[in-house]
Amino acid sequence: MAMNLLYAQSGGVTPVINATAAGVIATARAYPQDFGTVFAAKNGIMGVLTEELMDTSVLTDDDLQSLLYTPGGAFGSCRYKLKTPAENPEAYRRILEVFKAHDIGALLYNGGGDSQDTSLKMAQYAESVGYPLQVVGLPKTIDNDLYGTDHCPGFGSVAKYVAISIREAALDLQAMSRSSTQVFILEVMGRHSGWIAAGAGLAQTDGYTAPHLLVFPERPFHSEEFLERVHTTVQREGHAAIVVSEGVRDETGQYLQKAVSTDAFGHSQLGGAAYVISQLIGAKLGYKSHVGVADYLQRAARHIGSETDMRESYGLGEAAVDAIRRGLSHQMLTIERVSDQPYRIQWGAVALESVANREKLFPAEFMDASGYHLSAAGRTYLEPLIQGEAYPAYQKGLPQYWNQKLKCVAPKCAAYAPLAVPAA
Amino acid sequence: MAMNLLYAQSGGVTPVINATAAGVIATARAYPQDFGTVFAAKNGIMGVLTEELMDTSVLTDDDLQSLLYTPGGAFGSCRYKLKTPAENPEAYRRILEVFKAHDIGALLYNGGGDSQDTSLKMAQYAESVGYPLQVVGLPKTIDNDLYGTDHCPGFGSVAKYVAISIREAALDLQAMSRSSTQVFILEVMGRHSGWIAAGAGLAQTDGYTAPHLLVFPERPFHSEEFLERVHTTVQREGHAAIVVSEGVRDETGQYLQKAVSTDAFGHSQLGGAAYVISQLIGAKLGYKSHVGVADYLQRAARHIGSETDMRESYGLGEAAVDAIRRGLSHQMLTIERVSDQPYRIQWGAVALESVANREKLFPAEFMDASGYHLSAAGRTYLEPLIQGEAYPAYQKGLPQYWNQKLKCVAPKCAAYAPLAVPAA
Repeated sequence: MAMNLLYAQSGGVTPVINATAAGVIATARAYPQDFGTVFAAKNGIMGVLTEELMDTSVLTDDDLQSLLYTPGGAFGSCRYKLKTPAENPEAYRRILEVFKAHDIGALLYNGGGDSQDTSLKMAQYAESVGYPLQVVGLPKTIDNDLYGTDHCPGFGSVAKYVAISIREAALDLQAMSRSSTQVFILEVMGRHSGWIAAGAGLAQTDGYTAPHLLVFPERPFHSEEFLERVHTTVQREGHAAIVVSEGVRDETGQYLQKAVSTDAFGHSQLGGAAYVISQLIGAKLGYKSHVGVADYLQRAARHIGSETDMRESYGLGEAAVDAIRRGLSHQMLTIERVSDQPYRIQWGAVALESVANREKLFPAEFMDASGYHLSAAGRTYLEPLIQGEAYPAYQKGLPQYWNQKLKCVAPKCAAYAPLAVPAA
Repeated sequence: MAMNLLYAQSGGVTPVINATAAGVIATARAYPQDFGTVFAAKNGIMGVLTEELMDTSVLTDDDLQSLLYTPGGAFGSCRYKLKTPAENPEAYRRILEVFKAHDIGALLYNGGGDSQDTSLKMAQYAESVGYPLQVVGLPKTIDNDLYGTDHCPGFGSVAKYVAISIREAALDLQAMSRSSTQVFILEVMGRHSGWIAAGAGLAQTDGYTAPHLLVFPERPFHSEEFLERVHTTVQREGHAAIVVSEGVRDETGQYLQKAVSTDAFGHSQLGGAAYVISQLIGAKLGYKSHVGVADYLQRAARHIGSETDMRESYGLGEAAVDAIRRGLSHQMLTIERVSDQPYRIQWGAVALESVANREKLFPAEFMDASGYHLSAAGRTYLEPLIQGEAYPAYQKGLPQYWNQKLKCVAPKCAAYAPLAVPAA
């Protein structure tokens, strides 16, 4: 008998997570004997609790094609930590109620480490109450810090964007450094891991010297050592282009951004690592610097997404539906790298227990001896992930993204008091 | 007799200023009976003072093609204010010495308002001493604040980039707003004028609601009025995407960024308008917000430059050489808009006196009644400038930009003591 699928997006979104959604939906449609309705939960697990489920069968082939090229989370995502069944039995009873009401036979949960924790709890709970549910985790995170997979869908596009951005900004800087600004600092995401900063390092190749320094959160920030390198770079190149992970900490373990004094309202400064470094360079070396903070721009820059990343993200959706057909559960799909050159991958799987709530840091062997750039091994690992451009369609000079709102199906259960459905 | 040309780049660079260089060089080559060597000064007028001149005849057709797609300033730019001949007679004598030594018959100075002041001073000085020199100013600025021209080469590409970026970031925000961040604030360039913020406003079309608010420096920032609009937007949309000009000031004329307390080193916070607004929103409305600061990224984002802008920038170089052939001097070339739909322009010229040191602000009639978005007239003006994509070539997943260093020709004059040639 055909089962209904529930697909949901969770955690920070990526430029290509919607390609995975398209892969799930298109592949499930190819097996009508196996699959009934593919539902998408609105805002991840929150939409299960509130019974906000969208029927994806209204999506046309054009819609699915458009999702391949659309950043953000088409169905809404969430940051919502599901407690244990012991702590919050009501939530689990509710989820089960909604699953039963809509005949959900499999949950495909598309998220990072925290989200795989949710997947695991759901799988274990369903098993404990004897409800037949396959749970497959679909990896996704721009941070590339998920355990158990060679890399994460979403990361390659962000790496490509930051590498391009620092190459471009460095050309600007180089033109101005004689009489204006000597240092440019790009702050990128990465609270604990330096994968994104590392991705920017790919721009230093084929005669391009920038970025000159990458500041990874895995290494404590020693200001004197760092300033010495900045000084040497400016003396040699005339300028220095630097990429800093937002989560860099000093020798005492304090975030650099916390070192900035609080503002007029008593809040500590946000996203401030690059500003702290800029001020340090000005005060100690006398160089003028500029700061760019990519923030959501990097996470949403589908206009220059990696084609490799997009194809893998779509392929992940296909692989997930195949896995459900094979009876897989309690596992997260993984990317296994078969070879670097030519770059080839295959799909694997790993127990959700082994990935939930774990982080994979940027490894020391991917840093060069200085600790401020990539090693050859780091470059070999990263380079395939940014290959290819897969441009969205443009209209009136702007990319045309999928920007509709699907209606939720009529609820079959009572309202869930602890979490109200928001107004419109 | 064929004259030598001197081309120089001055002030902040743009994603397409090198297209203008390519237009100058390619067009001058087409008239060997009129033009001898096209020199490019290193770092603008500074390179004239230091006699650092590059012979562009070594550039191949492939190089010129590559310059069309390369951001930054290929020959180096400068921020260098030339004083009057009365204040600094030595500098003018020096420039004349260098011009004479290299038989420079025409100066094509590619820059903004300050740079046109330099052009004017050069033209007047040469005239006063009877040195035959044609001086033509070539407009360029991402800020679009140059007087006398419909718009400035460079601006369209930046407008396109910020419009795309806010559209993308808003899709990300929208997916996360239920349980994470409700407000995203993108800080863009514009110390005095809101043209770039206005460009971002183009993204609000065809069912895309973002950006919801544009904060122009032309209007004093009233926090209560602004907060009311943010609140209303979040209530209606679930989130708010805001674009803020870096130069926004409060009712007393103070830059918002100055309102932030000084840092640990005693420097006032840089680029802080968006952070001030973020903290205000958190403190007064309780919404979580994220801040992106585009900084040099916007000014260098050639990977998604406007094709219209690139073609006009190249055309400007052609038009400048044609103007020299017609005997024009003491003028800056201008873009005259012939029609909006279909969009058509023609080249005009305006006296350097009338453009030097003036700024064209974003006009009230291009703002809607609220003062926080575009009017229909503003949209009609801006829309043609972002049309078309002209992608650079990629290799290894990264754009291939022109990144060579031309050697300077052997000096014919003594060293210029007040301004030493930098090492390397």
